[in-house]
Amino acid sequence: MVAELISVGTEILLGNIVNTNAAYLAEKCALLGLSLYHQSVVGDNEARMEDTIRRALERSDVVILTGGLGPTKDDLTKEVTAKVFKKALCEDAHTKERIMEFFQKIHNGEKITENNWKQALIPEGAIIVENQNGTAPGLIVIGDEGSGYEGKRAILIPGPPNECIPMFETQIAPYLSDLQPEGIYSSMVKVCAIGESRAETMVADLMDAQTNPTLAPYAKTGEVHFRVTAKAKDEESAKCLMAPMLEELKKRFGDHIYTTKEEVTLEEAVIQMLEERKMTVTTAESCTGGLLCGRLVNVPGASSVLNEAHITYSNEAKERILHVSHEILKQYGAVSEETARAMAEGACRLSGADASIAVTGIAGPEGGTPEKPVGLVYIGCMVKGRTKVEKFRFTGNRQKNREYAVARALILLRECLLAADR
Amino acid sequence: MVAELISVGTEILLGNIVNTNAAYLAEKCALLGLSLYHQSVVGDNEARMEDTIRRALERSDVVILTGGLGPTKDDLTKEVTAKVFKKALCEDAHTKERIMEFFQKIHNGEKITENNWKQALIPEGAIIVENQNGTAPGLIVIGDEGSGYEGKRAILIPGPPNECIPMFETQIAPYLSDLQPEGIYSSMVKVCAIGESRAETMVADLMDAQTNPTLAPYAKTGEVHFRVTAKAKDEESAKCLMAPMLEELKKRFGDHIYTTKEEVTLEEAVIQMLEERKMTVTTAESCTGGLLCGRLVNVPGASSVLNEAHITYSNEAKERILHVSHEILKQYGAVSEETARAMAEGACRLSGADASIAVTGIAGPEGGTPEKPVGLVYIGCMVKGRTKVEKFRFTGNRQKNREYAVARALILLRECLLAADR
Repeated sequence: MVAELISVGTEILLGNIVNTNAAYLAEKCALLGLSLYHQSVVGDNEARMEDTIRRALERSDVVILTGGLGPTKDDLTKEVTAKVFKKALCEDAHTKERIMEFFQKIHNGEKITENNWKQALIPEGAIIVENQNGTAPGLIVIGDEGSGYEGKRAILIPGPPNECIPMFETQIAPYLSDLQPEGIYSSMVKVCAIGESRAETMVADLMDAQTNPTLAPYAKTGEVHFRVTAKAKDEESAKCLMAPMLEELKKRFGDHIYTTKEEVTLEEAVIQMLEERKMTVTTAESCTGGLLCGRLVNVPGASSVLNEAHITYSNEAKERILHVSHEILKQYGAVSEETARAMAEGACRLSGADASIAVTGIAGPEGGTPEKPVGLVYIGCMVKGRTKVEKFRFTGNRQKNREYAVARALILLRECLLAADR
Repeated sequence: MVAELISVGTEILLGNIVNTNAAYLAEKCALLGLSLYHQSVVGDNEARMEDTIRRALERSDVVILTGGLGPTKDDLTKEVTAKVFKKALCEDAHTKERIMEFFQKIHNGEKITENNWKQALIPEGAIIVENQNGTAPGLIVIGDEGSGYEGKRAILIPGPPNECIPMFETQIAPYLSDLQPEGIYSSMVKVCAIGESRAETMVADLMDAQTNPTLAPYAKTGEVHFRVTAKAKDEESAKCLMAPMLEELKKRFGDHIYTTKEEVTLEEAVIQMLEERKMTVTTAESCTGGLLCGRLVNVPGASSVLNEAHITYSNEAKERILHVSHEILKQYGAVSEETARAMAEGACRLSGADASIAVTGIAGPEGGTPEKPVGLVYIGCMVKGRTKVEKFRFTGNRQKNREYAVARALILLRECLLAADR
């Protein structure tokens, strides 16, 4: 089944916002086994929108439209879709009631403005998809005989991501999945500390040989995610199909695999390792300036393993707070293996934590020298009294170098925790 | 002049990456005064790409294609464009030399693989746009008489953002600007601490009346950016056209304007205010866990005003490090006005900084109570011995609540710095 996406809205067309909905929907549709060949963006203009929708319906079975379902005159997606499918718009009583309820909940006391009722108009025969997070419902319109698009489907979803994503996840995805003759099932294997090209080389034979299941790599900062996808009549059969591939990946990547769960992030995996070991962690950051600790605190419940952390940006702060010796700073400089080591050790001493990660480097754009260029970063990690320091030379801009450093710091902590188990 | 964007690549089509290039290019093209009505995404498939390019050339004067210019067999953008314009591909000696040079610089010693030479093939008569950050050059192809696209332009740009953006900025944008009969000039007014809808209401009359210059608002977290754009024959005339609008915005938003420079961020503006006042700052973070300090350290040269900062996640750390009294924590709790105040004061004392910002709150998803719901955040700010605390109730998820808190903390610091001047 071929699907395509149309994003409606001047904000996307003019670059005011990044089209994150399209990336989300495309990934999910691919995962459902739909074939995707086109995406388009069109503004709030009737003629151009009609042309775009017609063209999409000619070449695809399912056209997913996001945006343009709001209450204003500019919102035309529903009207144009109804016109294309030769369907009248009629008011839906249940939707009208829901709009009223939702409006009361959000704007308590305020009088509902007339234009909101426009959102209760539905193309005749359309399937109404309830919106838990806004007033405009989603709609599924199916082409009648004689419309020129018999059996073709247009799926209309509100544009705001906090309405679009939950609606797709909970209602549209199951609907699309039911349309597919075979189910699509997938597993994720997330690998860290191996570069993208090396990771792909390590599985080149598996990728060449793939039919069912398929194997697709996704490069992330410091990580590669492998998605294994199988088509099968039910989950049990899919699992059987995927098992040998998953086994093979585990054999090849071993300890580099930090999770096989879709939703688990690297920071979550690290926090969980600390929890399992009943260990606490702290950080001592210079060039990352708090981003490393900030990423650990992304994880709900990080407080069970993290009590405190310190940002020591100046040399004086490194000396006074972490007790990095004046001699080390003078002899080797703030960006050195010795300083990273002393920061990690000082952080554990200061906080009483079982583990620590320290980052010191030159993020740029200024501050580089021939001996210590921009992008040079030392990361120190102490776990149960043993300290390891790694040296990196990143080649991005200031923000990228700091992002890489954070990812590498999490990876080093993970490695040191595993090493301490042995 | 009508322009449209075509993004080529399976990664975008399948949602593996977000199409940030399209947002960047669309914003820049709009700013150059080009009219934008369509964007499309197409994969590495010859027939579909050809169809997409032909259709775009039929309805637009300039078609900007990104991606598909690399060395592999899958990279087809140049080949298909040449076919559409009925132009042969010929090897360009200068480009070949540049590819060799670039390859040597990056992969020193490694033998250049044969497929790289494909990147030296150029549609006859094309303008070559040098790529400072990669091997594939950009190309501008103009339709000949008899091609069916006479005078129409296809502009081919490599897909990686670190190649695409600098190439567009330095070479493509000036080229497009020269094609326009009138120049487009714009100024930016960045406003903070006023919500989007209130800010828009405050300028509704200006927006209704706009012709030349135009006024466009862009909502950001905690900020609204207003772009004032004028069409004029030269910069001088544009400035005259924009001046009354800029004056009016300054009158209406006053101190809420933190910059009128395109490139200045809120954190940069705050760092600059501290520099001007020869003051230092520190942070004491709980729920934001380092993100606030991390954002300050985004600014190159933040070290001139920031020496150290502390993340006190546990109550014990708040007591021991910041000397928040046990009584305050017991009586009011960690998420309270009193604790935020004590954290801010403790942070100044501890570090000797002239100013401090403290954040304590419940980011979620767990930990909320009816009295202290998820999203409740207190931000304390001390400047020159005076402390102000503000209470917020954010309604996002964990990450969003922390982002809002960081933005609000910067805004409060800015307000307190301004208040201290009076």
